[in-house]
Amino acid sequence: MVTVASLARQLGANYTGDGNIELASIATLQNAGEGCLSFLASSQYRRYLATTNASAVILGDRDAANCPVTAIVCENPYSAYADAARLFEQQPQWQQGVHPSVIVDPLVGIDSGCSIGANTVIEGDVRIGKNTRLGVGCFIGSGVSIGQNCILNAGVTVLTGAIGDRVVIKSGAVIGSDGFGFVRLDDGWKTVPQLGSVIIGNDVSIGANSTIDRGAIDPTLIGDGVKIDNQVQIAHNVVIGEHTVIAGCVGISGSAIIGAYCQLAGGVGIVGHLEIADHVTITGMSMVTHSIKRAGIYSSGTPIMPNTLWRKTAVRLKHLDKYFRSIAKEGKVKGTM
Amino acid sequence: MVTVASLARQLGANYTGDGNIELASIATLQNAGEGCLSFLASSQYRRYLATTNASAVILGDRDAANCPVTAIVCENPYSAYADAARLFEQQPQWQQGVHPSVIVDPLVGIDSGCSIGANTVIEGDVRIGKNTRLGVGCFIGSGVSIGQNCILNAGVTVLTGAIGDRVVIKSGAVIGSDGFGFVRLDDGWKTVPQLGSVIIGNDVSIGANSTIDRGAIDPTLIGDGVKIDNQVQIAHNVVIGEHTVIAGCVGISGSAIIGAYCQLAGGVGIVGHLEIADHVTITGMSMVTHSIKRAGIYSSGTPIMPNTLWRKTAVRLKHLDKYFRSIAKEGKVKGTM
Amino acid sequence: MVTVASLARQLGANYTGDGNIELASIATLQNAGEGCLSFLASSQYRRYLATTNASAVILGDRDAANCPVTAIVCENPYSAYADAARLFEQQPQWQQGVHPSVIVDPLVGIDSGCSIGANTVIEGDVRIGKNTRLGVGCFIGSGVSIGQNCILNAGVTVLTGAIGDRVVIKSGAVIGSDGFGFVRLDDGWKTVPQLGSVIIGNDVSIGANSTIDRGAIDPTLIGDGVKIDNQVQIAHNVVIGEHTVIAGCVGISGSAIIGAYCQLAGGVGIVGHLEIADHVTITGMSMVTHSIKRAGIYSSGTPIMPNTLWRKTAVRLKHLDKYFRSIAKEGKVKGTM
Repeated sequence: MVTVASLARQLGANYTGDGNIELASIATLQNAGEGCLSFLASSQYRRYLATTNASAVILGDRDAANCPVTAIVCENPYSAYADAARLFEQQPQWQQGVHPSVIVDPLVGIDSGCSIGANTVIEGDVRIGKNTRLGVGCFIGSGVSIGQNCILNAGVTVLTGAIGDRVVIKSGAVIGSDGFGFVRLDDGWKTVPQLGSVIIGNDVSIGANSTIDRGAIDPTLIGDGVKIDNQVQIAHNVVIGEHTVIAGCVGISGSAIIGAYCQLAGGVGIVGHLEIADHVTITGMSMVTHSIKRAGIYSSGTPIMPNTLWRKTAVRLKHLDKYFRSIAKEGKVKGTM
Repeated sequence: MVTVASLARQLGANYTGDGNIELASIATLQNAGEGCLSFLASSQYRRYLATTNASAVILGDRDAANCPVTAIVCENPYSAYADAARLFEQQPQWQQGVHPSVIVDPLVGIDSGCSIGANTVIEGDVRIGKNTRLGVGCFIGSGVSIGQNCILNAGVTVLTGAIGDRVVIKSGAVIGSDGFGFVRLDDGWKTVPQLGSVIIGNDVSIGANSTIDRGAIDPTLIGDGVKIDNQVQIAHNVVIGEHTVIAGCVGISGSAIIGAYCQLAGGVGIVGHLEIADHVTITGMSMVTHSIKRAGIYSSGTPIMPNTLWRKTAVRLKHLDKYFRSIAKEGKVKGTM
Repeated sequence: MVTVASLARQLGANYTGDGNIELASIATLQNAGEGCLSFLASSQYRRYLATTNASAVILGDRDAANCPVTAIVCENPYSAYADAARLFEQQPQWQQGVHPSVIVDPLVGIDSGCSIGANTVIEGDVRIGKNTRLGVGCFIGSGVSIGQNCILNAGVTVLTGAIGDRVVIKSGAVIGSDGFGFVRLDDGWKTVPQLGSVIIGNDVSIGANSTIDRGAIDPTLIGDGVKIDNQVQIAHNVVIGEHTVIAGCVGISGSAIIGAYCQLAGGVGIVGHLEIADHVTITGMSMVTHSIKRAGIYSSGTPIMPNTLWRKTAVRLKHLDKYFRSIAKEGKVKGTM
């Protein structure tokens, strides 16, 4: 429970209307009721403002006049909402200390303020920084270091690696598993030992069931502030520049180097041993087969269409080269053909 | 062991031949031997009927005359087979009750007939309905509710959410992890607290290592009867209509609304904040970038071809717009160019 | 610590220079320092040879003359490197025997030399061969058999199946979960019991968070020497021929038959009920919708391009069939139109 006036003060925002209104929970504009705080941060939702039953709405200057209820006005409403939501968040139960069921090697160093969930197993020579919280059933392998104020949810596996401060790793993620390295022999494949580490910077977030392999020799590197969604696969010796965002189901092959402040949309695939510049955005499900040297937005793939049309199009695609060769012979197409 | 006559009675089917034959196991037509029950439900396998060594075959009316052995004749042979197979299924060992190694908060309510596997951890305020079975090493977070007759296999993580009756969740699935929400700031990204739940209807199936995130504010919703295969990623605030089927490796971005009775084939990607009508089928690996308002089958992607041809085609594709622009200038293509 | 002379002897290699040099660790050519062993196995890295500070370099005959430091010369430098790296690998802590926290059914047979990690649970009728090592928190379901000299890392789930010798399964992998089988009914879907097994040959490697489902009736089959990367989904009744390599994020639908010595690059999708010949390579993110009967390299997908061009190209693709129909009418394109 927080009053409008108090919340506005905490957000560094102005407000119009009654500052004594008490806010008990958060809701979307369309679903909010009495006592709810809501927000307007995208034009897409502007249509719900006039009829909202929220008790107060966080919004920008341009929408304040049209707000039918108490308005909390600030420059970046989405950022202010994020701060406000933090107040209403029900934190999971982190009991301070090490649960009695935890199995810890005597050589582990756990700093003050940590919480280690039930059934978690921590091998030797592990270092865990202040106030870091490990959920239930995690496994932290020999020699791993984890910084301060990290959160590892239930069921995280860190086999090898050095993890920075304020890192969040979600359930089912596997960090530091052996990379996929084999030598081709005449009659099969020989495994190449994977000796490298995984180094994860500060303020990184890693999604549920994502995998980040250890390097073959040099480490796999995840820069500060990188945000990785669920089910992302990052192979050995990949380098991700700081503050790059990687959406769900992306796969990045070995030794690819991704710049800083990039955005990889869902399902993107990156071939190994290439380089992507800073500030590159790749749209959903695109396949990157060569280096990208300039900032910008890049895409591959074909548009969704009715299957009957797609079948005809697919046939045309199979003959595309032949068609154009035929047209070119007749001199009908100019240029680089 | 069941006799043909008894099985036919249980399936509501007729049979031809000897009703006293005893059936000990299930096998495919081509691999069946003495004592085996088999079935024919797809024309693809009809060629194996004449030479099968099964002792009895479940099949439809049109195939009965050609069955060289005892025929169990019914309208929907695949459905009847599913029922018959249930009789031969070796259920995993579910020992009733709570394994002594389980760590349960005293505030947890577990109804009668439940089975809770070894090393499972259940936090406070959890409610688990009658006859529900949790495998080994599951984690059920604070406040989660699970209905009756559910099966959660070994290693399932439910961080938050309300799960209906008769829901099956396979190993490694993560339900209710925080959605991927960040506010862009000048120098990086700020995490947006994820406050919403995950609501999963009745008769839902969720595959191994699939992930379903909790909503940002409103819940993520999975309708009754939805079937989700392995390694599917469902982002925050996605809504899936009832009885929709989602094959392996599908990724659905945040706030996408999928209709009822849809079928998403393997590897499909759905962009966020769009809407797909009921009864829409999307073929494998298609990318859906805009709303689909009518029932039907939709596709994207290009056909598989020899790599040498594909390389030429890829070059043509890069110049496709230019080619057609050039052709259009010469007045050779009519229509919407 | 190993001397050059001793290492060369172990590798069956010749060396030039001082055989008494001691090698303490492995590093890449560009990062190596005093006491480091390095290697040159790809022309891409040749530029680093002249300036390397390594104490010795494994390389091929053609590079020996240009090696500024002690050269260890052999026919297949990458293979020799793999053997050398084995000497420097820090093996994870495998404590022999069964950790006291392990929960094992009395009917389990565990051969000599095994190591079973903390909190692992093993159900009845399981057989585990000599010198096999199971990591922390694994689950091995009733009736599973695992061969000799296998390594299952922390958090592996094997629900059903028979696993050969020298198999490596990485963290979070789920083997033998029920396949995705449902019968369409008028008002939804009925589950088809999954009765088949998973049979995994010798020398197989399975990546982190990969899933291999059990068969519906006949087993799912993974041939000897198959190497599977992270986050790969293999559906029920898939058959993978020996020594085939499957990169990350590949999805293979039910009953697909993949030949021997194939290579599926990252993100490839294979439709069900088709057959791929031996020695077929599929390039990254391709979708295989029909059988491939001849060895060779195959591809689908479109090249990455700037988004502005891609948008224009996507529009052209939507009209591709119409354009060519229009051109054909005017007699401008010859051939199969």
